[in-house]
Amino acid sequence: MPPPNDLRRAQLTDAAIALLAEAGVHGVTHRAVERRADLPAGTASNYFRSREALLVATAERVIALHHADMSRAGVSGAGATAVDLIADSLFTAATTYRARYLAIFELRLESLRRPALAATLLALSDATVAFTRQHHADLDLAIPPEAVATMVALYGGALFSLVSAQPGEVDAVAVRGLAEAIVRSAVPGLT
Amino acid sequence: MPPPNDLRRAQLTDAAIALLAEAGVHGVTHRAVERRADLPAGTASNYFRSREALLVATAERVIALHHADMSRAGVSGAGATAVDLIADSLFTAATTYRARYLAIFELRLESLRRPALAATLLALSDATVAFTRQHHADLDLAIPPEAVATMVALYGGALFSLVSAQPGEVDAVAVRGLAEAIVRSAVPGLT
Repeated sequence: MPPPNDLRRAQLTDAAIALLAEAGVHGVTHRAVERRADLPAGTASNYFRSREALLVATAERVIALHHADMSRAGVSGAGATAVDLIADSLFTAATTYRARYLAIFELRLESLRRPALAATLLALSDATVAFTRQHHADLDLAIPPEAVATMVALYGGALFSLVSAQPGEVDAVAVRGLAEAIVRSAVPGLT
Repeated sequence: MPPPNDLRRAQLTDAAIALLAEAGVHGVTHRAVERRADLPAGTASNYFRSREALLVATAERVIALHHADMSRAGVSGAGATAVDLIADSLFTAATTYRARYLAIFELRLESLRRPALAATLLALSDATVAFTRQHHADLDLAIPPEAVATMVALYGGALFSLVSAQPGEVDAVAVRGLAEAIVRSAVPGLT
């Protein structure tokens, strides 16, 4: 079990994710986050000195959840093709975890006005490229490491289109087409 | 020369584009747009009854400008490959016209909370796919029409990564790599 402090931080940042998805970055304040997490006034300020610190922690939370999902897909996905894994990841991200990715895109645009958030997102993006390379190696996928940065950019872009469409418009066949395109872009012969 | 009313609408929506890029969607109000365009108080309300009408007109303005650029690229780009055209378009969009595309991404996220804006963006997205198919045909590019919707999604996604990075981080070699990946995703043998 995580220590109580970690649990509380997760509750607060999860509330921030929900608010970012529902109301945009303007909807995230210490007070709104406490209310949404059903915690007493003042809790958020105890954990996050500033609004920017809260936004930074929320970005870190999204990426930690994303990497945890990728790792689980590695365990259950042995034998799956790169297209299977990416299609499944995109579809789940655009439906079950839609709020989480809407939140990270809101934060990405907001980072242009907040240097500390920009620095965090840049570090997280580098970490995601490294994580994805290792993930491909662990799964014996025939994807050249030098193609991964481009694939991550295209995956992120495809996900932006999917989560910023109206909910319910995400179509499994279209998602599979995007996954095939992403894999083909990296490895011409693989699909 | 366009009629004075069209000119005034363009001034107001161009001011809205600049504000969206600088301050996010929350920075766009009738008053802020008039100030930014150096026009008298009340002008914006004369043209746009509501804040949503102003945002809708701004989305239409971005797409009209985008299509005009694509048409110009068609005139000057005879003989260019699909990769040349897409790399050039992405680079210019991410540098010279960065504000315009930051604006459309801000509007895309905001559209999840505004049905009229969502309907406009959906219609504009369909129009862009149709426009791009015709553009490819005019230029004799060997891109299958059925691949265009996926290419437009990947182009939009790549552009999101580029314009939401810090200004000055846009690298011509990386942009060319993205353009090659997008074309390869649509037409495996073309690059």
